[in-house]
Amino acid sequence: MSLVVVGSMAFDAIETPFGKSDKIVGGAGTYIAWCATNFTPVKQISVVGGDFPQDELDALTARGVSLEGVQIKKDEKTFFWSGRYHMDMNTRDTLETQLNVLGDFNPVVPESYQDCEYLMLGNLAPAVQSSVITQLKKRPKLIVMDTMNFWMEIAMDDLKKTISMVDVLMVNDSEARQLSGDFSLVRAAATIMKMGPKFLIIKKGEHGALLFHDNKVFFAPALPLEDVFDPTGAGDTFAGGFIGHIARTGDISFENMKTAIIVGSAMASYCVEKFGTERLRSIDKSDISGRLDEFVQLVNFDINLV
Amino acid sequence: MSLVVVGSMAFDAIETPFGKSDKIVGGAGTYIAWCATNFTPVKQISVVGGDFPQDELDALTARGVSLEGVQIKKDEKTFFWSGRYHMDMNTRDTLETQLNVLGDFNPVVPESYQDCEYLMLGNLAPAVQSSVITQLKKRPKLIVMDTMNFWMEIAMDDLKKTISMVDVLMVNDSEARQLSGDFSLVRAAATIMKMGPKFLIIKKGEHGALLFHDNKVFFAPALPLEDVFDPTGAGDTFAGGFIGHIARTGDISFENMKTAIIVGSAMASYCVEKFGTERLRSIDKSDISGRLDEFVQLVNFDINLV
Repeated sequence: MSLVVVGSMAFDAIETPFGKSDKIVGGAGTYIAWCATNFTPVKQISVVGGDFPQDELDALTARGVSLEGVQIKKDEKTFFWSGRYHMDMNTRDTLETQLNVLGDFNPVVPESYQDCEYLMLGNLAPAVQSSVITQLKKRPKLIVMDTMNFWMEIAMDDLKKTISMVDVLMVNDSEARQLSGDFSLVRAAATIMKMGPKFLIIKKGEHGALLFHDNKVFFAPALPLEDVFDPTGAGDTFAGGFIGHIARTGDISFENMKTAIIVGSAMASYCVEKFGTERLRSIDKSDISGRLDEFVQLVNFDINLV
Repeated sequence: MSLVVVGSMAFDAIETPFGKSDKIVGGAGTYIAWCATNFTPVKQISVVGGDFPQDELDALTARGVSLEGVQIKKDEKTFFWSGRYHMDMNTRDTLETQLNVLGDFNPVVPESYQDCEYLMLGNLAPAVQSSVITQLKKRPKLIVMDTMNFWMEIAMDDLKKTISMVDVLMVNDSEARQLSGDFSLVRAAATIMKMGPKFLIIKKGEHGALLFHDNKVFFAPALPLEDVFDPTGAGDTFAGGFIGHIARTGDISFENMKTAIIVGSAMASYCVEKFGTERLRSIDKSDISGRLDEFVQLVNFDINLV
């Protein structure tokens, strides 16, 4: 059940109505790895500059993340993003983006990663995502892809090509509408699944997530939280929990994907409690199972009473 | 298990991105009555003008609605509202409001309604709502109140007084924020429950509904629909399904309220399929149980897989 994760490893500087972070470690690949390693080891594919802290790499290694596929470009700088969240925490402005090493990232899949059964493509240029798929000699049992509106605006052809190669696509609600050209999420889902993926997950932030497959639909709520401190990485953490659960159980059925979405939602609910990956690093199995119980309580009802 | 419903009976003229209705019968009390009578008879309190169609009143009587508490002011006109929905169907502009008979509505509770066990206060001036409560010689087993932001703006003192007298309050998410002064719905719920109601339902439209009680929370999704044709009355229909289920079962526990919220959500999902009350009038018990099954499928997951 080897899990390969592709995604950025980055520096972020975050402003929210509640505070401001220093330049901290972030990136989709980082969040996915910190989260998924609660369930299974990870083989990471990414790129960082010489400025990326060695102790961060060591911490990931200690966590069970193979870094053989992470390129370290000593003379270059790590990808940097800075953003400011609005009061509702659902919308944000990008203040600064420095692509740096990500500008010409050419992923190389190490030989030791060729046993990949589960492939998680974190948000990245779709051409980089598809390059990893084509480098794998044997098609993984499940390929999951996250993406964002940015690529719809500058690389739609690449994006559609990569989407056609994957099993599960994750987008948020406005991205599903943009990609399909349909306002109704139910119709948008049908349109997007015709592009290739047999499963579609539509993330709605604080409003939960929907899983579509054939004519079936499953809804997972987000846990109502007193405070969302920093939403950065919540979607990546969700992806990490989802693929981590799937890889650990080895079960790619619709039924198990429902459970995987609940696991992803539970992990994301931890992520937003502190800046960056801080909260994710501090949780253990009993925290996770406690929060999963909260999800059961949150949605459980007795229809026999009707 | 006598159920008394207080609410407007009105004319509406509705514009959506998909069409435009004639002047049709609407009003919170009308929607609640059409919905709740699927579960239990209703004793209605309202006021209409001489222009309100007799066949509409006859249809409600045939449905099991007692109209003894409905005042008919022959020489006056029925309340009229006209509005236009935006593309997202969550926001709307009021084009015209004619209060007419509602302007000086003074509800009178008939003697035959004094056996009221369940009282549903549909959205109306809070002073009208509290007047019904105080006219009841014996306090009902459960008082449920719906309201809206309009009353927060023009009658906050009355509103807080009425809220302090009820068991269950229903508001939408922005109203919960406005009433509590807190953006976090979890903290808003705690604040509002200190105002009196032991239970709070926060409606989030297409994003479902939350039920709060003590430190417990339950979430019910809205059914993902291909098309929302006309959202008018969806909240009232939700209220009608909720109180209808409670009155039918005679069980006011938190557990049963969860089921009641699912029933309300299922009924609301029918309401929005056509203009006005049209769809609600055409459904039967097998439609309802079919849609309840869809809700079970929608949220059911196996946590034992974790």
